[in-house]
Amino acid sequence: MTPVHQFIESYCAAVLAKDVQAFAALYDDDVEVFDMWSNWSQQGIEAWRGMAEQWFSSLEDETVVVAANEISCTEGADLCIGTAILTYTARSTSGETLRSLSNRLTVAMRRHGDGWQVIHEHTSAPIHHQTTKAILRYSRDV
Amino acid sequence: MTPVHQFIESYCAAVLAKDVQAFAALYDDDVEVFDMWSNWSQQGIEAWRGMAEQWFSSLEDETVVVAANEISCTEGADLCIGTAILTYTARSTSGETLRSLSNRLTVAMRRHGDGWQVIHEHTSAPIHHQTTKAILRYSRDV
Repeated sequence: MTPVHQFIESYCAAVLAKDVQAFAALYDDDVEVFDMWSNWSQQGIEAWRGMAEQWFSSLEDETVVVAANEISCTEGADLCIGTAILTYTARSTSGETLRSLSNRLTVAMRRHGDGWQVIHEHTSAPIHHQTTKAILRYSRDV
Repeated sequence: MTPVHQFIESYCAAVLAKDVQAFAALYDDDVEVFDMWSNWSQQGIEAWRGMAEQWFSSLEDETVVVAANEISCTEGADLCIGTAILTYTARSTSGETLRSLSNRLTVAMRRHGDGWQVIHEHTSAPIHHQTTKAILRYSRDV
Protein backbone atom coordinates (compact mmCIF):
# COMPACT_ATOMS: atom_id res chain seq x y z
CA MET A 1 0.00 0.00 0.00
CA THR A 2 1.38 3.45 -0.89
CA PRO A 3 1.80 6.15 1.81
CA VAL A 4 -1.14 8.01 0.25
CA HIS A 5 -3.45 4.97 0.32
CA GLN A 6 -2.38 4.40 3.92
CA PHE A 7 -3.09 8.02 4.86
CA ILE A 8 -6.52 7.93 3.21
CA GLU A 9 -7.43 4.65 4.93
CA SER A 10 -6.45 6.07 8.33
CA TYR A 11 -8.19 9.39 7.59
CA CYS A 12 -11.47 7.65 6.65
CA ALA A 13 -11.29 5.44 9.77
CA ALA A 14 -10.63 8.45 12.04
CA VAL A 15 -13.54 10.43 10.54
CA LEU A 16 -15.92 7.47 10.79
CA ALA A 17 -14.93 6.94 14.44
CA LYS A 18 -14.88 10.72 15.11
CA ASP A 19 -11.51 10.05 16.73
CA VAL A 20 -9.74 13.41 17.11
CA GLN A 21 -6.52 11.86 18.41
CA ALA A 22 -6.20 9.37 15.53
CA PHE A 23 -7.04 12.18 13.10
CA ALA A 24 -4.43 14.60 14.51
CA ALA A 25 -1.74 11.87 14.59
CA LEU A 26 -1.73 11.82 10.77
CA TYR A 27 -0.39 15.39 10.64
CA ASP A 28 2.94 17.04 11.36
CA ASP A 29 3.00 19.58 14.22
CA ASP A 30 3.72 22.36 11.71
CA VAL A 31 1.07 21.32 9.18
CA GLU A 32 -0.24 24.05 6.85
CA VAL A 33 -3.81 23.44 5.69
CA PHE A 34 -5.67 25.10 2.83
CA ASP A 35 -9.12 23.80 3.77
CA MET A 36 -12.13 23.95 1.48
CA TRP A 37 -14.25 25.86 4.00
CA SER A 38 -14.14 29.45 5.29
CA ASN A 39 -10.44 30.12 5.97
CA TRP A 40 -7.61 30.90 3.60
CA SER A 41 -5.15 28.84 5.64
CA GLN A 42 -4.64 27.17 8.98
CA GLN A 43 -1.20 26.78 10.54
CA GLY A 44 -0.12 24.11 13.01
CA ILE A 45 -1.64 21.04 14.57
CA GLU A 46 -3.52 22.91 17.32
CA ALA A 47 -5.67 24.82 14.84
CA TRP A 48 -6.23 21.68 12.78
CA ARG A 49 -7.10 19.54 15.82
CA GLY A 50 -9.54 22.28 16.86
CA MET A 51 -11.22 22.05 13.45
CA ALA A 52 -11.60 18.24 13.86
CA GLU A 53 -13.02 18.60 17.39
CA GLN A 54 -15.58 21.12 16.20
CA TRP A 55 -16.48 19.07 13.11
CA PHE A 56 -16.88 15.75 14.92
CA SER A 57 -18.87 17.22 17.81
CA SER A 58 -21.18 19.08 15.39
CA LEU A 59 -22.18 15.72 13.89
CA GLU A 60 -23.95 14.58 17.07
CA ASP A 61 -25.53 11.19 16.18
CA GLU A 62 -24.57 11.29 12.53
CA THR A 63 -21.60 9.49 11.05
CA VAL A 64 -19.58 10.54 8.01
CA VAL A 65 -18.44 7.93 5.52
CA VAL A 66 -15.55 9.10 3.31
CA ALA A 67 -14.95 7.35 -0.01
CA ALA A 68 -11.81 8.02 -2.08
CA ASN A 69 -11.49 7.82 -5.87
CA GLU A 70 -8.73 8.43 -8.40
CA ILE A 71 -5.98 8.17 -5.80
CA SER A 72 -2.47 9.01 -7.02
CA CYS A 73 0.85 8.79 -5.18
CA THR A 74 4.26 10.10 -6.18
CA GLU A 75 6.77 8.85 -3.62
CA GLY A 76 10.21 10.44 -3.42
CA ALA A 77 13.15 9.76 -1.14
CA ASP A 78 11.87 11.91 1.69
CA LEU A 79 8.68 13.60 0.42
CA CYS A 80 5.51 12.17 -1.06
CA ILE A 81 2.63 13.80 -2.96
CA GLY A 82 -0.89 12.41 -3.05
CA THR A 83 -4.09 13.40 -4.81
CA ALA A 84 -7.63 12.02 -4.68
CA ILE A 85 -11.28 12.89 -5.01
CA LEU A 86 -13.02 12.39 -1.64
CA THR A 87 -16.77 12.01 -1.21
CA TYR A 88 -18.21 12.69 2.25
CA THR A 89 -21.61 11.15 3.00
CA ALA A 90 -23.40 11.92 6.27
CA ARG A 91 -25.59 9.13 7.60
CA SER A 92 -28.22 9.04 10.32
CA THR A 93 -28.20 6.39 13.04
CA SER A 94 -30.66 4.37 10.93
CA GLY A 95 -28.20 4.41 8.00
CA GLU A 96 -30.13 6.97 5.94
CA THR A 97 -28.06 9.26 3.69
CA LEU A 98 -28.54 12.85 4.89
CA ARG A 99 -26.20 14.73 2.52
CA SER A 100 -23.18 14.14 0.37
CA LEU A 101 -20.46 16.26 -1.22
CA SER A 102 -17.08 15.80 -2.82
CA ASN A 103 -13.79 17.60 -2.80
CA ARG A 104 -10.33 17.39 -4.30
CA LEU A 105 -7.53 16.43 -1.96
CA THR A 106 -3.83 17.17 -2.26
CA VAL A 107 -1.50 16.00 0.50
CA ALA A 108 2.24 16.47 0.86
CA MET A 109 3.87 14.06 3.29
CA ARG A 110 7.31 13.86 4.86
CA ARG A 111 9.03 10.72 6.15
CA HIS A 112 8.61 10.45 9.90
CA GLY A 113 10.27 7.44 11.56
CA ASP A 114 8.98 4.34 9.77
CA GLY A 115 5.96 6.15 8.36
CA TRP A 116 4.85 9.44 6.89
CA GLN A 117 3.13 12.56 8.22
CA VAL A 118 1.18 15.19 6.33
CA ILE A 119 2.98 18.56 6.23
CA HIS A 120 0.49 20.21 3.86
CA GLU A 121 -3.11 19.48 2.90
CA HIS A 122 -5.20 21.33 0.32
CA THR A 123 -8.89 20.54 -0.23
CA SER A 124 -11.25 22.38 -2.55
CA ALA A 125 -14.10 22.21 -5.00
CA PRO A 126 -14.00 23.85 -8.43
CA ILE A 127 -15.84 27.16 -8.73
CA HIS A 128 -18.51 27.92 -11.30
CA HIS A 129 -17.29 30.90 -13.33
CA GLN A 130 -20.54 32.86 -13.62
CA THR A 131 -22.06 32.26 -10.17
CA THR A 132 -18.77 31.89 -8.21
CA LYS A 133 -20.52 29.03 -6.39
CA ALA A 134 -18.67 25.85 -5.50
CA ILE A 135 -19.47 22.75 -7.56
CA LEU A 136 -19.98 20.18 -4.83
CA ARG A 137 -20.85 17.10 -6.86
CA TYR A 138 -18.03 15.29 -8.54
CA SER A 139 -18.25 14.59 -12.22
CA ARG A 140 -15.37 13.31 -14.30
CA ASP A 141 -16.35 15.62 -17.18
CA VAL A 142 -17.65 19.10 -16.51
CA MET B 1 16.26 31.35 -4.68
CA THR B 2 14.19 28.24 -3.85
CA PRO B 3 12.62 26.13 -6.65
CA VAL B 4 9.21 27.50 -5.58
CA HIS B 5 10.31 31.15 -5.76
CA GLN B 6 11.83 30.39 -9.16
CA PHE B 7 8.63 28.75 -10.40
CA ILE B 8 6.51 31.67 -9.20
CA GLU B 9 8.83 34.23 -10.80
CA SER B 10 8.68 32.38 -14.13
CA TYR B 11 4.91 31.85 -13.82
CA CYS B 12 4.28 35.59 -13.21
CA ALA B 13 6.54 36.55 -16.13
CA ALA B 14 4.79 34.08 -18.48
CA VAL B 15 1.33 35.33 -17.48
CA LEU B 16 2.35 39.01 -17.84
CA ALA B 17 3.80 38.28 -21.30
CA LYS B 18 0.87 35.95 -22.19
CA ASP B 19 3.58 33.54 -23.34
CA VAL B 20 1.97 30.10 -23.70
CA GLN B 21 5.26 28.35 -24.48
CA ALA B 22 7.09 29.77 -21.44
CA PHE B 23 4.03 28.93 -19.31
CA ALA B 24 3.79 25.31 -20.52
CA ALA B 25 7.56 24.76 -20.10
CA LEU B 26 7.12 25.03 -16.32
CA TYR B 27 5.02 21.86 -16.23
CA ASP B 28 5.72 18.14 -16.64
CA ASP B 29 4.09 16.42 -19.63
CA ASP B 30 1.96 14.34 -17.22
CA VAL B 31 0.93 17.24 -14.98
CA GLU B 32 -2.32 16.83 -13.02
CA VAL B 33 -4.06 20.13 -12.27
CA PHE B 34 -6.85 20.82 -9.78
CA ASP B 35 -7.68 24.29 -11.07
CA MET B 36 -9.85 26.77 -9.19
CA TRP B 37 -12.30 27.17 -12.08
CA SER B 38 -14.94 24.88 -13.58
CA ASN B 39 -13.23 21.47 -13.83
CA TRP B 40 -12.51 18.88 -11.18
CA SER B 41 -9.18 18.00 -12.76
CA GLN B 42 -7.11 18.38 -15.90
CA GLN B 43 -4.61 15.74 -16.97
CA GLY B 44 -1.55 16.31 -19.12
CA ILE B 45 0.24 19.26 -20.66
CA GLU B 46 -2.00 19.47 -23.75
CA ALA B 47 -5.10 20.22 -21.65
CA TRP B 48 -3.15 22.68 -19.50
CA ARG B 49 -1.56 24.43 -22.48
CA GLY B 50 -5.06 24.70 -23.98
CA MET B 51 -6.28 26.42 -20.81
CA ALA B 52 -3.41 28.95 -21.02
CA GLU B 53 -4.08 29.64 -24.72
CA GLN B 54 -7.74 30.27 -24.01
CA TRP B 55 -7.02 32.40 -20.93
CA PHE B 56 -4.35 34.59 -22.58
CA SER B 57 -6.33 35.13 -25.79
CA SER B 58 -9.47 36.02 -23.80
CA LEU B 59 -7.54 38.92 -22.22
CA GLU B 60 -7.27 40.81 -25.53
CA ASP B 61 -5.56 44.15 -24.64
CA GLU B 62 -5.55 43.55 -20.90
CA THR B 63 -2.54 42.33 -18.94
CA VAL B 64 -2.60 40.28 -15.75
CA VAL B 65 -0.14 41.08 -12.97
CA VAL B 66 0.31 38.21 -10.50
CA ALA B 67 1.65 38.97 -7.02
CA ALA B 68 2.68 36.20 -4.62
CA ASN B 69 2.54 36.30 -0.83
CA GLU B 70 3.35 33.87 1.99
CA ILE B 71 5.50 31.66 -0.22
CA SER B 72 6.70 28.43 1.38
CA CYS B 73 9.05 25.80 -0.01
CA THR B 74 9.86 22.33 1.33
CA GLU B 75 12.65 20.90 -0.81
CA GLY B 76 13.40 17.18 -0.68
CA ALA B 77 15.96 15.08 -2.52
CA ASP B 78 13.84 14.65 -5.64
CA LEU B 79 10.47 16.30 -4.88
CA CYS B 80 9.57 19.78 -3.71
CA ILE B 81 6.36 21.24 -2.28
CA GLY B 82 5.40 24.87 -2.55
CA THR B 83 2.52 26.98 -1.29
CA ALA B 84 1.58 30.63 -1.77
CA ILE B 85 -1.27 33.08 -1.97
CA LEU B 86 -1.47 34.55 -5.48
CA THR B 87 -3.30 37.76 -6.36
CA TYR B 88 -4.26 38.28 -10.01
CA THR B 89 -4.89 41.87 -11.08
CA ALA B 90 -6.15 42.63 -14.59
CA ARG B 91 -5.03 45.99 -16.01
CA SER B 92 -6.14 47.96 -19.04
CA THR B 93 -3.66 49.33 -21.58
CA SER B 94 -3.74 52.64 -19.67
CA GLY B 95 -2.72 50.83 -16.45
CA GLU B 96 -6.16 51.01 -14.81
CA THR B 97 -7.06 48.13 -12.46
CA LEU B 98 -10.08 46.31 -13.94
CA ARG B 99 -10.52 43.49 -11.43
CA SER B 100 -8.55 41.53 -8.86
CA LEU B 101 -8.87 38.20 -7.08
CA SER B 102 -6.72 35.87 -5.04
CA ASN B 103 -6.26 32.14 -4.78
CA ARG B 104 -4.27 29.59 -2.83
CA LEU B 105 -1.56 27.78 -4.74
CA THR B 106 -0.04 24.38 -4.02
CA VAL B 107 2.61 23.03 -6.38
CA ALA B 108 4.44 19.72 -6.29
CA MET B 109 7.64 19.69 -8.34
CA ARG B 110 10.02 16.97 -9.47
CA ARG B 111 13.70 17.37 -10.33
CA HIS B 112 14.15 17.62 -14.08
CA GLY B 113 17.72 17.99 -15.31
CA ASP B 114 19.24 20.95 -13.51
CA GLY B 115 15.85 22.39 -12.60
CA TRP B 116 12.36 21.40 -11.50
CA GLN B 117 9.01 20.86 -13.23
CA VAL B 118 5.54 20.98 -11.77
CA ILE B 119 3.88 17.54 -11.68
CA HIS B 120 0.80 18.71 -9.74
CA GLU B 121 -0.83 22.09 -9.18
CA HIS B 122 -3.86 22.84 -7.01
CA THR B 123 -5.44 26.30 -6.88
CA SER B 124 -8.59 27.24 -5.00
CA ALA B 125 -10.41 29.80 -2.92
CA PRO B 126 -12.12 28.96 0.38
CA ILE B 127 -15.88 28.51 0.23
CA HIS B 128 -18.36 30.37 2.40
CA HIS B 129 -20.31 27.76 4.37
CA GLN B 130 -23.80 29.24 4.12
CA THR B 131 -23.78 30.57 0.56
CA THR B 132 -21.31 28.01 -0.94
CA LYS B 133 -19.82 30.99 -2.79
CA ALA B 134 -16.07 31.35 -3.24
CA ILE B 135 -14.29 33.94 -1.09
CA LEU B 136 -12.17 35.72 -3.70
CA ARG B 137 -10.48 38.38 -1.58
CA TYR B 138 -7.59 37.28 0.56
CA SER B 139 -7.60 38.12 4.22
CA ARG B 140 -5.17 36.72 6.74
CA ASP B 141 -7.97 36.33 9.29
CA VAL B 142 -11.44 35.30 8.21
